[in-house]
Formats: sequence, C-alpha cells, structure tokens
Amino acid sequence: METMSIDVNRIREDFPILKETMNGHPLVYLDSGATTLKPQVVIDAVNHYNTKKTSNVHRGVYQLSNDATELYEGAREKVKQLINAKKVEEIVFTKGATHALNLVAQSYGLYNLKAGDEIIVSELEHHSSFLPWQHVARVTGAVLKFIPLDETGHITVENFKKVLSDKTKVVAINYVSNVMGYVSPIKEITALAHEVGAIISVDAAQAAPHMKIDVQDLDCDFLSFSGHKMCGPTGVGVLYGKYELLNALEPMEFGGEMIDIVGEVTSTWKDAPYRFEAGTPVIAGAIGLGAAIDYLEAIGFDNIAAHELELRNYAVEKLEELGGVTIFNRDAETGIISFNIDGVHPHDAATIYDAEGVCVRAGHHCAQPLMGWLCQPATLRASFYLYNTKEEVDAFIEATRKGKEFFDGVFF
Amino acid sequence: METMSIDVNRIREDFPILKETMNGHPLVYLDSGATTLKPQVVIDAVNHYNTKKTSNVHRGVYQLSNDATELYEGAREKVKQLINAKKVEEIVFTKGATHALNLVAQSYGLYNLKAGDEIIVSELEHHSSFLPWQHVARVTGAVLKFIPLDETGHITVENFKKVLSDKTKVVAINYVSNVMGYVSPIKEITALAHEVGAIISVDAAQAAPHMKIDVQDLDCDFLSFSGHKMCGPTGVGVLYGKYELLNALEPMEFGGEMIDIVGEVTSTWKDAPYRFEAGTPVIAGAIGLGAAIDYLEAIGFDNIAAHELELRNYAVEKLEELGGVTIFNRDAETGIISFNIDGVHPHDAATIYDAEGVCVRAGHHCAQPLMGWLCQPATLRASFYLYNTKEEVDAFIEATRKGKEFFDGVFF
Repeated sequence: METMSIDVNRIREDFPILKETMNGHPLVYLDSGATTLKPQVVIDAVNHYNTKKTSNVHRGVYQLSNDATELYEGAREKVKQLINAKKVEEIVFTKGATHALNLVAQSYGLYNLKAGDEIIVSELEHHSSFLPWQHVARVTGAVLKFIPLDETGHITVENFKKVLSDKTKVVAINYVSNVMGYVSPIKEITALAHEVGAIISVDAAQAAPHMKIDVQDLDCDFLSFSGHKMCGPTGVGVLYGKYELLNALEPMEFGGEMIDIVGEVTSTWKDAPYRFEAGTPVIAGAIGLGAAIDYLEAIGFDNIAAHELELRNYAVEKLEELGGVTIFNRDAETGIISFNIDGVHPHDAATIYDAEGVCVRAGHHCAQPLMGWLCQPATLRASFYLYNTKEEVDAFIEATRKGKEFFDGVFF
Repeated sequence: METMSIDVNRIREDFPILKETMNGHPLVYLDSGATTLKPQVVIDAVNHYNTKKTSNVHRGVYQLSNDATELYEGAREKVKQLINAKKVEEIVFTKGATHALNLVAQSYGLYNLKAGDEIIVSELEHHSSFLPWQHVARVTGAVLKFIPLDETGHITVENFKKVLSDKTKVVAINYVSNVMGYVSPIKEITALAHEVGAIISVDAAQAAPHMKIDVQDLDCDFLSFSGHKMCGPTGVGVLYGKYELLNALEPMEFGGEMIDIVGEVTSTWKDAPYRFEAGTPVIAGAIGLGAAIDYLEAIGFDNIAAHELELRNYAVEKLEELGGVTIFNRDAETGIISFNIDGVHPHDAATIYDAEGVCVRAGHHCAQPLMGWLCQPATLRASFYLYNTKEEVDAFIEATRKGKEFFDGVFF
C-alpha cells in the first residue's frame, strides 16, 4: 500500500477516550490486542438500550420488550452478515471468546471424544484456545498433540500434516496469534482436518477485529470471538457453529429461556442458538457489538488492516534504527509487535512506557507455551488499531529510547 | 407501615426511561421481576468506563489499566459489603445468576456427588436453580428430591424435613420465588442441611434487589444473583461462596487470567475468585453493578421493600374489588402478584395491558414445575419496584378492567 488508507484524524474524533491524558502525556494506546477503545456510536448504542429500551428480551408480550428483542436479534443478524454465516441461527451470543471456546470444548468434546482420540492444538495458542481442550483430554483420555512451529513461530500446513492422523477428532487453533500476529492457514488446515473426519474450532479473537472473515469460505465448523476486542463492549462474545453441528450440541448451561419442556427428571431444549443462551442474555453488550460491527464495516476491514500494517512496519523500522531491541515477530502480517529491550525485563520497561503515557502490555500474554518456545519469561507487546497514528508510533519509539537509556544507566 | 417510606417522585427522576411512552400511554413498567430499569448513575458508571477508562483489568502495567482494575475490584468490594461476606475473595463476577448457579452445580456437583446421593430442590424453583442440578443428577446418578409445597405454595421447614436425610448432599433452593414472591426460610433450612453434612446453594436473584442479605447470618454456602434485576446492567451476576468451599472448586471455564502455571499436559489455577473469571471479565457490567448497589443502599433496602409491599397490597385490594380475577399468591411477602383474569388466557390479556402502556409478564415464568402445581399453563405477573407508584397501580387495574370487559364481550 502507498498511503494511509483511512482518515485517522477523523476516526480519532469518534473515540472520546483519546482526549484523555495519562501521567501528564497524551494517551498513546497501543494495547488493542487486550481490549479496544470504544467509539461514541457504541457508547450511544449501549446508552440507548439502558436509557430508552431497557427490558428483557423474548419473554415479554409488550412493545418495550419487542423493541429490545428487535435490537438484540438485529445484532445477531449483523454478526451473521459480518462473518457470512449461512443462517442467523448459527450465531450464539456468549460472555466472550473464552466462554465460546469453552462451550465448543465441553459441549462437543466431552460428549464425542474417547480415550486415544487426538486433539490438535499448537504452541501458538492463547490459553483460552488450548486449556479447554486440555480439560477435555483429562476427562476423556483423549490426547493433545501440538503442531510444531516453524523457525519463525508460524503454524504451517506442512507441520500440521505431521501431527494429523486418523485418530484426529478435533483441531483447535487460532486464526491470528495474540502474541505473534501471524495469520494461520485456516482454510487449508480445515480441508485437511475434514479429510480425516475431524472438526475444527477456530479462535478468531484476534482476527475478527482486523480482517473480513468468511466462515463459508473457510468451511470451519466453529469460530469464536469477543466484542471488546473489536470496539464493542466488554462481556459479550460470539460463537459461530455450522447449524447441524451446533444444533446437535448439548448446552453447557441450563436455565431460563433455553428450554422446551421441563420435567422433574428430564427436560428438552430449544433449538440453537437459544439453547446456549440460558438466562437473561447480554442484551446491552450484544446491541453494542452490533453498533461496533456497523462502525468497522463502514470504514472497511481492508482499510483497517492496511492502516495497522503500515503503522507496524513503520514501528519495526524505527525500532531497528534504534537498536538494542529484539523483535520476535519481525514479519507478522497483522498489527502486533512482540519484542524486548535487550537486557531489560519487560515489566521494568513497561514502567517507563507508562510514565510516558504509552500503553503497551508486558507479560506472558496468556500464552505460556509460546513463552517457552521463545525462551522468554515475558515479552512486551505493542498492538495497533484503526485509531493509532504515526505520531503515536514516534512517541512509542521515544519511550523505548528512554527506557533503554534509563536501564542502561542503572543496571549495566 | 403507614405511608410511602420513600420519595417515589424524586426516585423517578433518576430513571430516564420513565419519560418514555408505550403505545401512546405513559410507560407503566410492572415487569421488574424480569429486569429492572436503570438509574442515571448506573448508565453514567458504564459510560465513564467506556468513555474515559476503557482498558483491560489485572493485565496492564499502565495507569489506565490500573484505574480500570480499581473500578472493577472496587465493585467487588461493594458486593462483599452488600451481602456481608467475610472476604472480598468470596465474590465471583459471572455473566448472571444463571451462570453462577450452573457454576456451583457443575464445579461442586459433578466433582462431589455420586449415584444414590440426594439433591433437594423444590417445585418453586426457577429453571435456572433446578435444571443445573437435574443435569448433575443425570451425569452422576444422584437423585433429585422435591420439597413438597404447602397448600399456599410455600416452602416450609416442616416439609423440608420430610425430604432431608443422611443421603442429602446438596440443597438448591430460591430465597424469593420469582412467581409467588414468597420468602423461603433459608436460615433454618441451612442449619438443618448442615446437620446432615449437606451444602446449600441459594438462588437469590429475586431476593438481592429487594432485601438486605447477610450471608454470614444465613450461613449459606453459595448464593447467586444477577445485576440486571437490581438496577445494574445486563450481562453481570454474582456468585458468593464460603471461601474454603469456593477455593476448593474446579473452574467451569478455562482460559486467560485464571491460571497459575500452564503446562502442555496439566495446569494449575489461581485462587478464588480469579480462577472462575477466565478471559476478559464483564468490566463495564461489574462497575455498573457497583453503582447500582450504591444507589439502592442510599435509598435503603427496608424502605424499598416497604414501598413494594404497600403497592402490592394496594393492587391486591383493587384486584379483589374488581372481581373475576384469581390471585395465586395472595399473601406474598414481596412485590409480586401472580394472577389470571378468569376465562382469559394470560397471553390474550397481555395484549390488552400492552395497548394500555402497562408492562406485565405472561407465561410460565421459567417455572414449569410450579405451573403444574398451580394447574395453570401460564399466569400473568405484575412485579413492583422502588420506582412504581399508586397511580401506576391504578392504570394497571384500569387495564385489567378493560381486559375483562373486552374478552367478556368477545368470547363469552
């Protein structure tokens, strides 16, 4: 790409928090991989429900409840279109990506796997993608197999083939790594998984905010993501499942509005997606997520991705100019840089960023197996989104320079 | 009580939705048992986080994340004080009461019960209180026993004793019935359950909004409730557990921020409550619930309860004056009236209420076993809260009169 493909200054006007300061500096928010800032349209959508349309959904027989139901189900339709699902009934609203990933593992894995079956994950997984299947393996006696990463830390089709076998029943991997920012070859892996009769559950928490997802093109069986990482509210996420598979799952939670007939000994459930939405759903959250989808689609996912990558590449170039910095994912395809300042513990470095008003994350990023692979206890992570600017990258670089100087002086 | 114990007109100013109309009439919201309206302070608290403090919690090492964490953990402290828990670590934020009740059933029940053990529930349970244990019974071979209701539909200590035995391992009952509005004798039942070594899980979804709960005085082991039924946002709830018991439970979901050490085959978990909050929590929801607690406590739960009961008794009196109405819970202790207009299906009646701007619920209220006990396919339910007025009761009565007249004319 040649130039900034979006009008970032206009976009920044949509995010009220960008008027805030942190420790006396303009806020430079480079932690969108953890959660994203919220545009005014999302804040307004949540407000609209809370202020004018509060009521429960599906249950009421009065206009106010019908209005709330229409807003809630309208958000489901927006999600369906976002990921090109075949049917709106393939979309379940959950508490978040973690809840969705656990739902697949428990409701599919606990009922369909047996001792000796194999579950393929990777060392590149977020704990939320990997631990639910570790639990299933413990309970059922199934075996976890790890796709070996290539020398750059990528999941490759070639390496996937090395662990795939007739025993493979489930593949559970990320679409975009939350530490490395790599895009996994989901479509190719899905086709191979299906050849041996395995299903695939995709963790798209870091993909959905940054790229157009087409579940029909991928042909994946399940796909999960969060609202709060794509400009939506906290507390809401999405599970997509192919309808026949989804509708065959047992619920993970039991309660109101997911039942058909309740007896004292046995009960029957509604069809998907309602079977998986026991109790009062995350009404305001889903409505807010719907507004976030409208907002991101109006800007365009291709434009967002191009903007992030331009910022990332600029930051990588500047970090390399600075020197004394190890970048762990030099050639990532999305807007994440994982790095350390040589000789400085990432948590120490983070205090300097903080003092300079720059929000980056330091830690294991809920990916302890990958930290082992990297031979690092922790890394720093800067993650970019549509509202970030080159000037913010400059502030980030300047803070990095100060961090290097400060700790050079103190410790070495 | 003699007079209205709260200044309802001042309170109504706090709820912006009360300025709305429905079908050309002032909105008369008598469905707080399903979800409550939100006061401006709660809307503002959610806004504040979304507008000025958006960031993830616990993970960040920068000021903005620390601020968000302080708001989130501050809300936990407010919940602790609300129910007089011993320690703040006894408070888990969940997706809602349903999620909390399922967590107890699965994380306690699936790991501790075996074939032949007995679980005591009642026919007065909401599906969310009863179905999670039906699932546990199916999986473990434990047996569900139902407390027989007395002739008025109450759970009594005497009837509880009839089903209690040395085989009882769990008691799972409501504090206040969502259909009948009766208050269960939790303290007495808890003492008896403990005598045989059983634990008790209390569904307080309909109690927490309306009365001061003291978990130490009750001595209950687990207690669950929702935010959205007590002026808080949708998508957030609370699980309280006695610390030793809570901290011995396995998590129900696995993912980020609930782990200690993650290996490829086994992992270890953080202590309670974080073990149960996998993934990004419901940050805005918890902060909003904290604001709701402050709001309700400033008004006073005794005052709220007295106000609701005064409205309820006034409404019962007026319904009886009208005649041709069957009230199923004439002597309830809280602000719920379950009734039917004689000869009119509740769903038909509800359309008349709707046309008159009155929100009441019609249905089985997620309590099908109780509908069987009442020999009704469904009932109407009017539920009152702190913002309702006598004038609204009058509008409700007038709508009831119209409903009677309309259907008398049409069908009989």
